[in-house]
Amino acid sequence: MTPRIVERLKEIVGAEYVLTSPEDLVRYGLDEIEERYRRMPDVVVKPHTPEEIAAIMHLANEERIPVTPRGAGTGLSGGAVPVFGGIVLSMERMNSILEIDCDNMMVTVEPGVVLADMMRAVEAHGLFYPVDVSTFESCYVGGNVAENAGGARAVKYGVTSDWVCGLEIVTPTGEIVCLGGKHIKDVTGYNLVKLLIGSEGTLGIITKITFRLTVKPTYVLDLLIPFDSLEVAVSQVLKLLREERDLSAIELMDSSSIRVAEQYLNLKLPYDDCEAHLLIQVDGMEEDVVWRSAERIYKRVTQAGAKETLVADNRVTKERIWRARRVIAEALKALYRHVSVEDIVVPRAEIPQAVRCIKKLAFQHCLEVCLYGHIGDGNLHPTLVCNDRDEFTWTHDLEAFLTDMFCIVRKLGGNLTAEHGIGLKRIKYLPLMLDKAEIALMQAIKKAWDPNGILNPGKIFG
Amino acid sequence: MTPRIVERLKEIVGAEYVLTSPEDLVRYGLDEIEERYRRMPDVVVKPHTPEEIAAIMHLANEERIPVTPRGAGTGLSGGAVPVFGGIVLSMERMNSILEIDCDNMMVTVEPGVVLADMMRAVEAHGLFYPVDVSTFESCYVGGNVAENAGGARAVKYGVTSDWVCGLEIVTPTGEIVCLGGKHIKDVTGYNLVKLLIGSEGTLGIITKITFRLTVKPTYVLDLLIPFDSLEVAVSQVLKLLREERDLSAIELMDSSSIRVAEQYLNLKLPYDDCEAHLLIQVDGMEEDVVWRSAERIYKRVTQAGAKETLVADNRVTKERIWRARRVIAEALKALYRHVSVEDIVVPRAEIPQAVRCIKKLAFQHCLEVCLYGHIGDGNLHPTLVCNDRDEFTWTHDLEAFLTDMFCIVRKLGGNLTAEHGIGLKRIKYLPLMLDKAEIALMQAIKKAWDPNGILNPGKIFG
Repeated sequence: MTPRIVERLKEIVGAEYVLTSPEDLVRYGLDEIEERYRRMPDVVVKPHTPEEIAAIMHLANEERIPVTPRGAGTGLSGGAVPVFGGIVLSMERMNSILEIDCDNMMVTVEPGVVLADMMRAVEAHGLFYPVDVSTFESCYVGGNVAENAGGARAVKYGVTSDWVCGLEIVTPTGEIVCLGGKHIKDVTGYNLVKLLIGSEGTLGIITKITFRLTVKPTYVLDLLIPFDSLEVAVSQVLKLLREERDLSAIELMDSSSIRVAEQYLNLKLPYDDCEAHLLIQVDGMEEDVVWRSAERIYKRVTQAGAKETLVADNRVTKERIWRARRVIAEALKALYRHVSVEDIVVPRAEIPQAVRCIKKLAFQHCLEVCLYGHIGDGNLHPTLVCNDRDEFTWTHDLEAFLTDMFCIVRKLGGNLTAEHGIGLKRIKYLPLMLDKAEIALMQAIKKAWDPNGILNPGKIFG
Repeated sequence: MTPRIVERLKEIVGAEYVLTSPEDLVRYGLDEIEERYRRMPDVVVKPHTPEEIAAIMHLANEERIPVTPRGAGTGLSGGAVPVFGGIVLSMERMNSILEIDCDNMMVTVEPGVVLADMMRAVEAHGLFYPVDVSTFESCYVGGNVAENAGGARAVKYGVTSDWVCGLEIVTPTGEIVCLGGKHIKDVTGYNLVKLLIGSEGTLGIITKITFRLTVKPTYVLDLLIPFDSLEVAVSQVLKLLREERDLSAIELMDSSSIRVAEQYLNLKLPYDDCEAHLLIQVDGMEEDVVWRSAERIYKRVTQAGAKETLVADNRVTKERIWRARRVIAEALKALYRHVSVEDIVVPRAEIPQAVRCIKKLAFQHCLEVCLYGHIGDGNLHPTLVCNDRDEFTWTHDLEAFLTDMFCIVRKLGGNLTAEHGIGLKRIKYLPLMLDKAEIALMQAIKKAWDPNGILNPGKIFG
């Protein structure tokens, strides 16, 4: 990075939107993963238009400078970490909701819009964006698309990828391209929209997104169901999925997770001495239908040995329960010195086996693990925590555990990450999970689109 | 193609599965598009395993022979036409249902399984594959994946792409690669499963598919609603989509479509003198909910001026109505000398405008057009028909019309094809619809994966 290049960046976006002071740079060097992954960019640039981004990419290609796009920095894989320095492209100024199209039930936004702002804006029109990311109050929708964010309501509503119809991107070589649009079926050539989603900012910089929306469900019930046995709790999931069609969420919290949430929020959840809680959401357009579903769930879990079925049908109780669930990762980070949030996924029928194996493995490795996550999708966030080891020992022990855990997950037919991404954090485990030939196919796309390797280098493939 | 190469193919798959007689070759030269697109392959090969296909691809790369994969030949874009001769790879022997996994609610099949066979097999276990392709009694699931087949129930259930979790493919360079699996969320690297779906056999040969399934809806009502005015019929679609959540299909048949279906099937539909019929399906798990939805629909359309709402709640009536809808394309082909089935898509709010423009355009071009299709998805199949022109005049007139129609569709924010594909038939219109930069991104992937350009060449990009 030379003063001349910084000057050219200032010409493109305006001097006040180019940051170079060390205290500014350090703030853009990490997302929500461990401190040891922090890297310093050479410069932070805050563009306002796709044309500015295109000009930056042309410059970066000429000068062979790495460019790392950045949303709100809430990612859990280090996707926004500028591994090789260079330019961090912060999307924070591109934060307009451009259009709410009620006829087509769609919303078009810039990538720097906060998810909760978009959700509230469309709800004011009776519309509903159902992807319920834990960090919805702070994450950007651009990051959601780049990482293909999942969240709690995927059981019924799928993930970000299921809701994106159109994208505007700037390619690694600096061309502005519009993909898809407001039509909901399309086979005109390859599906580049779906390829971009979850590509972690390595294939293009997202500058505009059109999401389709649905009608907001009128009745939503949340059921908190404590079980004495984690095994029994977990065994109910498949049966519920087979019997109920309006389940929007099935979340698991084990006793450790419940305990830290209580401690962090200074509240008490009912039956907090139980081994596990399931948090189940049922939604629909008709009150009686939703209640009938809740009654069937109650009967099933009671027969199976649930201690109780607590029904939250008002805002205060709902928020209390969901806040406990959402806060777990944050609470663990506050309460432990070392924390690693994982994101495995297995076929849903393998959930009981996965839970059993992970518990056993943690015991063998003398590590403490909290088990929680989107169990209805086969997606768990085993979180390894520790207070009593130094950095070196912790890293060593963690890596040994993770290698074993991912091998088990692969044997069960699952994969490394369901919604957080590979980023920087999981690079070394990718070859454990995917065959060389599959990785080579991915790398071939990356190389074809980004011949100079300047867009978010050092991610996914290393 | 030399006798030596034919010998090597026979060594790979067995002599009885290599066809070279002209009468055999001619049968593999076309799918369901117009006769003028027929091309003769040099040899037809019927492999039985992915390993055989890998060996064929190695040979084809060494010898630079084009390879065209073929399903049941029911495609509507010429995707299976061997444009440059070479090898047609018929998947007809790879036709086993490998596993029905009730716990995970998934089915794993080979690509040559007939869609209806798979649907019936899973329904015997109380499971449901909802993608309702018109040719379900004959098309192969491999072709459905290659083309990302849509069909009538996409309003509620989406398209093929929404149901595929795992694929085994043979790459253009002859490597066997497994993508995805039985887990339902995954961001471990780029989403190659979604990239393969709809890639029209140009990026890989599909050798195994895992579909996720859902629970079969218990109550299904079909409503046939005649309108005196096509405009009024069409104007109801958006309102219904906004108000009802359990609509699984909204189909349009205009008066010409109804007439040819009646003539071809030798039956009479009620109110066949009306300008348009909507065929609406509502499904769900609870009888009262489905009926309440039907009642709301009845009230809405009656207020809007529908002549009647005919409810089909038994198998015979249902089949009669749906057969009329499904048979339209086939009937047109039987009754007219020249037929071109199109497959446009527009944002749903633009449907009335699209219908108006297409009718006007056909009038200006002195062409007869039948309008029918999946209007609930903004996907229409305007079908141009003619009996009184010679081949040359017809082709000329058709091309002039299509160029104008696609320009209108683009202006309305739509696209060239929603579910049939570009194939051979729509190549010349692709540059009208997509910007050069987008096409270049697609071609870069094709070139990176298939450096010798031997897998289904002459498709999509020409």
